[in-house]
Amino acid sequence: MPTRKRNLPCVVVRRGPEVIMLDCGEGTQKQMRYSRIGFNKKMKILISHMHGDHVLGLPGLFQSMSMLGRTKKIDIYGPKGLKDFIESTERTVKYSRRFDLEIYEVNEGRIIEEDEYEISSKWIDHDFPCLAYALEEKEKPGKFKLNKAKELKIPKGPLWKELQKGKSIKIDDITIKPNEVLGPSRPGIKLVYASDTRPCKPVVVLSKKADVLIHDCTFEDSHKDKAQDYGHSTASQAAKIAQEAYAKKLILIHISAMYEESNNLLKQATKIHKSTILAEDLMRIEVRN
Amino acid sequence: MPTRKRNLPCVVVRRGPEVIMLDCGEGTQKQMRYSRIGFNKKMKILISHMHGDHVLGLPGLFQSMSMLGRTKKIDIYGPKGLKDFIESTERTVKYSRRFDLEIYEVNEGRIIEEDEYEISSKWIDHDFPCLAYALEEKEKPGKFKLNKAKELKIPKGPLWKELQKGKSIKIDDITIKPNEVLGPSRPGIKLVYASDTRPCKPVVVLSKKADVLIHDCTFEDSHKDKAQDYGHSTASQAAKIAQEAYAKKLILIHISAMYEESNNLLKQATKIHKSTILAEDLMRIEVRN
Repeated sequence: MPTRKRNLPCVVVRRGPEVIMLDCGEGTQKQMRYSRIGFNKKMKILISHMHGDHVLGLPGLFQSMSMLGRTKKIDIYGPKGLKDFIESTERTVKYSRRFDLEIYEVNEGRIIEEDEYEISSKWIDHDFPCLAYALEEKEKPGKFKLNKAKELKIPKGPLWKELQKGKSIKIDDITIKPNEVLGPSRPGIKLVYASDTRPCKPVVVLSKKADVLIHDCTFEDSHKDKAQDYGHSTASQAAKIAQEAYAKKLILIHISAMYEESNNLLKQATKIHKSTILAEDLMRIEVRN
Repeated sequence: MPTRKRNLPCVVVRRGPEVIMLDCGEGTQKQMRYSRIGFNKKMKILISHMHGDHVLGLPGLFQSMSMLGRTKKIDIYGPKGLKDFIESTERTVKYSRRFDLEIYEVNEGRIIEEDEYEISSKWIDHDFPCLAYALEEKEKPGKFKLNKAKELKIPKGPLWKELQKGKSIKIDDITIKPNEVLGPSRPGIKLVYASDTRPCKPVVVLSKKADVLIHDCTFEDSHKDKAQDYGHSTASQAAKIAQEAYAKKLILIHISAMYEESNNLLKQATKIHKSTILAEDLMRIEVRN
């Protein structure tokens, strides 16, 4: 439930010109206005599961995007049931969507493969079929060494670009390999979203050495039984999962409306995993490695 | 569309212990928390039409009410399509509603008759079938004159109550009529909700001598053509309807997201109908007569 301080789940990853939205609770379109994310960006949406607090913002978002003139396609991924939900709201609540929507009902596995990153999913342990998602950037080529390129007399222009992309080139029958002008390749960023879930092995596996693990933290430690009953995690359980996975940063989300003050949750988690943040509405976190 | 200042349509009438909600746009449950209306009150909901901005708050509201332990029934009224919308969201977005919902798909006419008030509806002129609603209190009995009751030696207690309800009583074979101890009866309050609509006769008829007319004011006067095209009203058009109906107070709602500042709208309407208010989020207005 939303509280006066907290809205329903939605996390947005901005990666270059693209927006990757994780879940879309009621009120998301309003929060997008505050965060100035923009309604016309290249965009993917990943839905964890078909509980209302994770999807009820979709119809209104699509409606407003249409009114704002969006024509760019959106790809949306989620468990079985997503298509039925979107289609029935579009049938019963009248509006004309002006952009294409490609709906993918997915299972666990590698679900998206792009040039620079891939996204995989795993079933996690909620009281309803629920997927966690891992966004993993591919290795990035190393830094281009200007001096080295000049030394080898490679003319500035398309040949530089080829090398930067990791391809070999030829000048006067002499082959120049990318590693002659590039520094060591840099690892990509890995970010995992796991809400809603009990503490479970699949999240540990999926978030192995993740830079960021965004994890369910519905309850304080004293409500461990409730967490078990309703398919959620306590603060310490979330922190233990981050520890086991060697995740660098843990971000706690999906805080129960029971807690007006969330200091205890953060304290309990930080005891186990030092680098922990408790998500607040409209918080922005820059992820670099 | 919501803006950073304005949420989607929802008006709540609080009448004694009862809450009568008019439309339920996305974000209503959040605003209810701010306004501290309470999720467990005796309640009716009236839906004007099946456009998303007027109904998409319903599933989340019902869901949160269930989590908060509501068991009291809700009666909900609206045009054809309402039942299909509610049933499909309950089928596709999983949650257990813990209270009964009685869905009435209504036409124009007297749709609700209670002891103290009635509600009637009329089709109005939008680009989609849309109902305006009039809530009309019945005449209230006059004030009870304490001195007069003592003078007539009527013992305090059940006999006073009978007279207050407008019933005659007998003391030692002498009949006492209620008008002997009651002041003149007082007219009830009349409130009309008409969103979304072009300026039209049915609203004038429905809101004849209303104490409050809540009326569509999507556009400034300069956008008269747009108002016509999309089935809405300008500020002056809304004011003229209030004038024609001899409505005492006009409240302008459904302001387009085009206007960050809404001063012009109020100025244009006030020129025609002096007693006009431009609705703001969480505004409270006490209606007495």
